Amino acid sequence: MRWPEGFIAVDWGTTNRRAYRLDGQGRCVDEFEDARGVLSVPAGAFPAAVAEIRARLGDGPMLLAGMIGSNRGWIEVPYVACPAGLDELAQGLAWADDRTGIIPGVRDDQRADVMRGEEVQVLGAASAGTIPADGRVCHPGTHNKWVDIAGGRIVSFRTVMTGELFSLLKDHSILSDLLGSPVAPGDAFDAGVRHGLACDDLQANLFSVRARVLLGQARREDAASYTSGLLIGGDVRIGLPSTLAARVFVLGRPELTRLYAAALTVAGHDPVELDGEQCFLAGIQHIAERIA
Amino acid sequence: MRWPEGFIAVDWGTTNRRAYRLDGQGRCVDEFEDARGVLSVPAGAFPAAVAEIRARLGDGPMLLAGMIGSNRGWIEVPYVACPAGLDELAQGLAWADDRTGIIPGVRDDQRADVMRGEEVQVLGAASAGTIPADGRVCHPGTHNKWVDIAGGRIVSFRTVMTGELFSLLKDHSILSDLLGSPVAPGDAFDAGVRHGLACDDLQANLFSVRARVLLGQARREDAASYTSGLLIGGDVRIGLPSTLAARVFVLGRPELTRLYAAALTVAGHDPVELDGEQCFLAGIQHIAERIA
Repeated sequence: MRWPEGFIAVDWGTTNRRAYRLDGQGRCVDEFEDARGVLSVPAGAFPAAVAEIRARLGDGPMLLAGMIGSNRGWIEVPYVACPAGLDELAQGLAWADDRTGIIPGVRDDQRADVMRGEEVQVLGAASAGTIPADGRVCHPGTHNKWVDIAGGRIVSFRTVMTGELFSLLKDHSILSDLLGSPVAPGDAFDAGVRHGLACDDLQANLFSVRARVLLGQARREDAASYTSGLLIGGDVRIGLPSTLAARVFVLGRPELTRLYAAALTVAGHDPVELDGEQCFLAGIQHIAERIA
Repeated sequence: MRWPEGFIAVDWGTTNRRAYRLDGQGRCVDEFEDARGVLSVPAGAFPAAVAEIRARLGDGPMLLAGMIGSNRGWIEVPYVACPAGLDELAQGLAWADDRTGIIPGVRDDQRADVMRGEEVQVLGAASAGTIPADGRVCHPGTHNKWVDIAGGRIVSFRTVMTGELFSLLKDHSILSDLLGSPVAPGDAFDAGVRHGLACDDLQANLFSVRARVLLGQARREDAASYTSGLLIGGDVRIGLPSTLAARVFVLGRPELTRLYAAALTVAGHDPVELDGEQCFLAGIQHIAERIA
């Protein structure tokens, strides 16, 4: 271990960041989350934004993961190609200075896809043994990732824009006034999931959300849950052909894994939810050990 | 003819309005278009917005069509149920005062779908004989409509949110910086159409637009045309099973009918473009004759 006194780990996304202080045994002893995602940091202001983390968590070494390493972040770190495990992530790490490293994302050239941040969680879960070393994992977020791992390495993956599409529809579309209600599993959500699993007409079915309310065929307060179910059902249809194994691991933020688990249950799978935060801490600790 | 001296016809949509002065023979003798769509008019301000049209085009009787008759417009006019022809539209007309009538929209209860404004254009084209009295018509716009007519009446229709989805992605999504280029038919557009026709993974393929550019597999300047083709190709797949007749009539704004005609050609159809404005004028003139 390069840093026997521990280090600071940061999961720095587009719209928020989470920072953790880990001690020499990998235990989280302090943390915070705020809304300073990379899009909120002006060009040139990243050194100050990093110093702010040290001011809050202590002046230690630091590993950063996520969009902080993208062309919209601090330093653009080239993607590591699939198959990619923790070794490849550690080898591809870029040093901003001698104690501040940025973890690369992963590219899938065959599928034409990219990720930054999810790889630490997925590989962390695999190396900790909380998911099998071989199989397909679901990682919901703004952009849901279906990740195939083999031998504990990411071999292929596919991104579905489910979360962002829901946000666009909720914030800016003709459906805005219908999508403000809270989304929750239940009959309306399940009905949306079933349609999304069976049908390939998302663009048409979205409009009918509004039409059904106008025509008195659906309740206004069900529209948000139905639409979320519709999008997640379509996501599952794209990402998980029903011939695959019944048990599916879903890792990420609990409020999202809960919805995906409900949809996977409707689809006849047996979902297992994992807290993405714990997976992240496991993964970044394993990377820190490899750069000793 | 109730109005031998002619009348003013208004196609009043969500984001803009077009107003025409027709003489006693149905000829357009004056017109204007502006951005005063229903969403830009505060509640209570519609009488003034209507008076403004008379101030510009003359103080005559008036027929209004489109979202002006919706719950976001001036007076909510109940939808007419399918099958709906010009007779049903004339019978369902609501009078704001004794010389100002608002034309109803059409509802398809079986499909759970609604339209306001397109019905005048489609039925106008059918009554003028520029499209057959039986068949499926494409009406692109913010929300594309595939309309089945039989015996000159609308019997069924389906809405696809293609135009709005493209706008949301262009204005607010992670693809924003890629979608600013002009959209035009060509190789990139056709490639998008072919994918949209063949595949049911829109939510995933949208993200790959960005990934392909990041990975050097696609040119940044092609992204807008490819994405437009992807959406329109999916729209055609949903709206027009390939077993239907080769000839397809597309009516609407020329900049949109051009793109749909290109996509329909890729799909093996034989599209015929019609100017939606002329169809609207034919339709509203026929309605005016029926309320004599």
